[in-house]
Amino acid sequence: MIRKYLYGNPIETSAITEEMELSKDPIPYFNELTLNSGETVFTYQMTESDIVYGLGEANRGLNKRGYIYESFCTDDPNHTEEKRSLYGAHNFVVISGMISVGIFIDCAAKVTFDIGYTEQDTLKITPSVPDFKVYVIDGKDAYDIVKQFRKIIGRSYIAPRWAFGFQQSRWSYMNEDEIREVVRKYRENGIPLDAIYLDIDYMEGYKDFTVSDERFPNFKDFVAEMRSQGVRLVPIIDAGVKIEDGYDVYEEGVQNNYFCKREDGSDFVAGVWPGRTHFPDFLNEDARKWFGSKYKVLLDDGIEGFWNDMNEPAMFYTDEGLNEVKDYIKNVDLSNPDSETIFKVKDKLSGLANRMEDYCGFYHNVDGQMIRHDKVHNLFGYNMTRSAGEAFDELEPNKRILMFSRSSYIGMHRYGGIWTGDNQSWWSHLLLNIKMMSSLNMCGFLYSGADLGGFGSNCTRDLMLRWLAFGIFTPLMRNHSALGTRRQECYNFGDTEDFKNILSIRYSLIPYLYSEYMKACLNDDMMIKPLSFEYPADDFARGVEDQLMIGESIMIAPVYEQNANGRYVYLPEDMLLVTFKSSSQRKYQILKKGPHFITVALNEVPVFIRKNKLLPLCRTTICTDNMDTSRFEIIAYTNDNIDYTMYEDDGISKDYDNPNNYCQFSIKKIDDQLGAVSSKTIVKLSLFN
Amino acid sequence: MIRKYLYGNPIETSAITEEMELSKDPIPYFNELTLNSGETVFTYQMTESDIVYGLGEANRGLNKRGYIYESFCTDDPNHTEEKRSLYGAHNFVVISGMISVGIFIDCAAKVTFDIGYTEQDTLKITPSVPDFKVYVIDGKDAYDIVKQFRKIIGRSYIAPRWAFGFQQSRWSYMNEDEIREVVRKYRENGIPLDAIYLDIDYMEGYKDFTVSDERFPNFKDFVAEMRSQGVRLVPIIDAGVKIEDGYDVYEEGVQNNYFCKREDGSDFVAGVWPGRTHFPDFLNEDARKWFGSKYKVLLDDGIEGFWNDMNEPAMFYTDEGLNEVKDYIKNVDLSNPDSETIFKVKDKLSGLANRMEDYCGFYHNVDGQMIRHDKVHNLFGYNMTRSAGEAFDELEPNKRILMFSRSSYIGMHRYGGIWTGDNQSWWSHLLLNIKMMSSLNMCGFLYSGADLGGFGSNCTRDLMLRWLAFGIFTPLMRNHSALGTRRQECYNFGDTEDFKNILSIRYSLIPYLYSEYMKACLNDDMMIKPLSFEYPADDFARGVEDQLMIGESIMIAPVYEQNANGRYVYLPEDMLLVTFKSSSQRKYQILKKGPHFITVALNEVPVFIRKNKLLPLCRTTICTDNMDTSRFEIIAYTNDNIDYTMYEDDGISKDYDNPNNYCQFSIKKIDDQLGAVSSKTIVKLSLFN
Repeated sequence: MIRKYLYGNPIETSAITEEMELSKDPIPYFNELTLNSGETVFTYQMTESDIVYGLGEANRGLNKRGYIYESFCTDDPNHTEEKRSLYGAHNFVVISGMISVGIFIDCAAKVTFDIGYTEQDTLKITPSVPDFKVYVIDGKDAYDIVKQFRKIIGRSYIAPRWAFGFQQSRWSYMNEDEIREVVRKYRENGIPLDAIYLDIDYMEGYKDFTVSDERFPNFKDFVAEMRSQGVRLVPIIDAGVKIEDGYDVYEEGVQNNYFCKREDGSDFVAGVWPGRTHFPDFLNEDARKWFGSKYKVLLDDGIEGFWNDMNEPAMFYTDEGLNEVKDYIKNVDLSNPDSETIFKVKDKLSGLANRMEDYCGFYHNVDGQMIRHDKVHNLFGYNMTRSAGEAFDELEPNKRILMFSRSSYIGMHRYGGIWTGDNQSWWSHLLLNIKMMSSLNMCGFLYSGADLGGFGSNCTRDLMLRWLAFGIFTPLMRNHSALGTRRQECYNFGDTEDFKNILSIRYSLIPYLYSEYMKACLNDDMMIKPLSFEYPADDFARGVEDQLMIGESIMIAPVYEQNANGRYVYLPEDMLLVTFKSSSQRKYQILKKGPHFITVALNEVPVFIRKNKLLPLCRTTICTDNMDTSRFEIIAYTNDNIDYTMYEDDGISKDYDNPNNYCQFSIKKIDDQLGAVSSKTIVKLSLFN
Repeated sequence: MIRKYLYGNPIETSAITEEMELSKDPIPYFNELTLNSGETVFTYQMTESDIVYGLGEANRGLNKRGYIYESFCTDDPNHTEEKRSLYGAHNFVVISGMISVGIFIDCAAKVTFDIGYTEQDTLKITPSVPDFKVYVIDGKDAYDIVKQFRKIIGRSYIAPRWAFGFQQSRWSYMNEDEIREVVRKYRENGIPLDAIYLDIDYMEGYKDFTVSDERFPNFKDFVAEMRSQGVRLVPIIDAGVKIEDGYDVYEEGVQNNYFCKREDGSDFVAGVWPGRTHFPDFLNEDARKWFGSKYKVLLDDGIEGFWNDMNEPAMFYTDEGLNEVKDYIKNVDLSNPDSETIFKVKDKLSGLANRMEDYCGFYHNVDGQMIRHDKVHNLFGYNMTRSAGEAFDELEPNKRILMFSRSSYIGMHRYGGIWTGDNQSWWSHLLLNIKMMSSLNMCGFLYSGADLGGFGSNCTRDLMLRWLAFGIFTPLMRNHSALGTRRQECYNFGDTEDFKNILSIRYSLIPYLYSEYMKACLNDDMMIKPLSFEYPADDFARGVEDQLMIGESIMIAPVYEQNANGRYVYLPEDMLLVTFKSSSQRKYQILKKGPHFITVALNEVPVFIRKNKLLPLCRTTICTDNMDTSRFEIIAYTNDNIDYTMYEDDGISKDYDNPNNYCQFSIKKIDDQLGAVSSKTIVKLSLFN
């Protein structure tokens, strides 16, 4: 049951798509307190065994207890443990224990979730403004509550199937030839590849919707050339529009008042990659439509996917901030500074980026009302991506365009996926990736993934292999790395066979992964789940954070520690362990319910098939275009009749709901023997019981 | 067997105490290559199963494979995974596999250890200068090699027994009353405490060997007052000496040329906490003696221990660096900066600290020879602590003074312990602490530990409890935290009973821990060992990095993950699990060899007693002064006669080698029944078999 409450006079976030009456009951489960400052605080007394799920893209574990989180979309590339904010604001938590209850704080401004940080057993939620909505959901368990929540926030964005191929990125591939070289090396080494990303340097002077003539003199041809090799190019779009006379996007924006304004009505200026920029007012419907229409120029060049970046929005500096620093430096004697002076000047400069004063220094035009940015901060990236998504619906009514964003809010999940931003080549960030995936799924962000191998810092061969071995199972499987770091394309670490093999597993799994992803999208369900959601009565499973259920048939247990030759795994039921070395090289072992230690070599991927489930595998290929989905190999763990319903479509049109988009795989007793039955050709059945 | 090699003409580091002939054999096991640049490179081709131990205070795991480390003592408080240098330089590694071989690069300048970072199976060691010594050690296994190495580097520093008590620190307790309050709260809550630390603010203007009159008007009396409550005060000493007319240390140093010089012979200036300072030339024997003699003023006030800090040496800035920044800023147009300009100015300011140019900008007088600092950088903190240690031997010939340092080099282990510097309140740093302890032991640093609860960032109750539950087993058990962070004294997290209980376990264990520590010191052995050192034939044990052997009787397996209610543990043999809730509240369980999952509540400490071993426990107390070591309780896991030899002395004099400093505990068959026999009173025997 879902109860809705209104506080003050919030602007419409459109996070919730379902019309609902306001509840007349008092808020259940939570204590509600209005402080003298006017802030409303919601508290919940947790019992020792309560788990708190949720918060989507947030730091730390699956169970969010023991820390404090601030929902305030933040560009901070150093995700160390003490950080309270990442790029997204996903204000949905579920307390799971003797009582299970979920709460969604639909608030466009900052919300603080103190989940046992200040007091070990107290959950305390504090919206920073008096205007918001609250939804309280009860249900039989956490999974039930998540499913109820997902029903009211609308269907998740659906990516094209090619976006399940392996994707390679770098800040930045600088020109056509560099990209040709990357693609050539992937193809030469037989390592699958479906897309190459264009980071900021493909543009002319970092201007959105431009392409550098010098670096890409024949962009449209180049897009087609790559496409003919099975490779899509995916350009980045940044939030800030460069201030430059003669630049159409800038001039149109100024002319039509499409940019965010200062209090005095002038266009707000923030320094980002291009230097001084204006921010499109994505909360203004007209501006949103206008910005969205700009993607057309790249679609017309044959582009089929985009990533929206810097849309927290990130600011390196503002004029206001710079002036403050200048004034400060003027009054400092740098001839004989003490340490404090040095630190203060340094802090002043570091503090230039993403200043709260600057977020309070510009305004949005929301249906004619001027609203200060900080009050609606968390909607910015959301509405940038909505701007693109709504435009794509008009420009390409029956074609799926790949779209994912860095910043997000619940609601944005209907318009695009997310990647988890600027992580690092740290083993702990591989673990963070593992722990975050199901939280993202709870909040509707199904098409998501992290920068595999890590964006910042230098990746080592072993970290790359282990991270890929996990990335196989995330819808967005992209290797991305930063300027100045070690090159981390898969062919750069020696002995490329291991990389080819690991990616071959991904490509064999794509029909299954895509099917599970699509069913989750279409049914407002989760594709990636914690064990506790599938085995709610299993107390041990409740404590497991480093294993995941991927769709209905399999469980994974990635290795995320350097120099580990295996790991402990808990099986909530008997399972068939398939250890893949490549799509075709596999070992099988039936393991009993309970804890196990499994050895996993650096070039192996363990997959656990659940009892009475089957896993269909297609033949691997070098890109999704070449994928043959008419012939399958089946691995089944059963001694009885079982079925698997596979979702399958053309992967690109929007004819999702066609009932013909399903096919059956069955294990059936025929002449007293179990065999595989399907409309597909079954080339091999590996049956275990 | 140990072979010694000489390259170029290195200065004497005194890391090695044993006289040895140069080897006439070529270097065995390693390939040696002299590059055109004059650099010598040592490489070793690792097999897949080789483990590389060593490097003492270094980042990442127990097995150092898969990363690159630079031995260059560095003040960097943000120990994230990509960092290559921490505060110490411990150039000893052991490759353990089919062949086991150790190598010590006795080099005072930077040495790079690329342990499979560039090429997965290649270990590559590159000293940055042509002058150094190399020691190659082979032996039957890694432990054997470590023991050989320890024999040639001399006996480790021996701490007083009171330093095994629990110690509380903060940057900073600002005055007498604040300290009285901390002690009062510890005592009121019955939480044991043996020492309070004085961080930089106890000084007058951050001047070494001064005490602020305002904050501590009657320092000597206050030291005595605390001492009467069983609490020692431990002041910090920084490397830099404030430039201030009338300050005796400054004036004497200038007068006698005891400070490091610029190339032009002027005294080198670096900005640190006091502002502009000079660095004592600890490599100059006269300066070292002089600086050491200064500790007397605090010893005379009744002080019995010190910590040496900022001795990498850390520099916030130099005049040379500041001038460069000023010149740079002068030429930058900050009226309309692009992002690069902003970043560059910021980087310039951040780059002011610990600049390599500055380390190349001053000189030491080593036996009359002027040697540029960067060539001997890693000896600086070492010789600061040596200066203190040599002085203590003169000033207090028969009293142990507590001494530990932040920066260190092998050789310094004879003069003091170390703490592991400015860590953070991160769960990953609890794990780093666990993984580092045995590496430190390999390099001779037995009296060591990390800032429990974490120095930077805010600690949560659960992290504090789990970290204390590990800290129980480290010789230095100190809770320390930074200015501006959440107060992390044990009484600040509510429900103090849990803290009191956990510390009661420490105090019951002190006789055992102290005994194991002393035996390790006296026999050049390790107190804290990886499992693989005790069970070299056990392949599984070789992979375990998060369990440790503590002395001869016990193994520990700390919980280091947030919200975990237990953990997996591997038992290399049958063991008795004793789950302590307090020194007196315990549960017992015999567990078989192999992997297990054990549940460990937040207020529990699991200890594994080895087969045929016993663990003596004394009664807990609130400070070591009150410890009663005449009466013991024994927990034994045996069905046969066994013995335990306990080292025991007065804990403060230097009469270590007295053969009377040992007493026996035996489990013996008497009248067909096993009983405990000792010269001590055995108040209880808990016998399991």
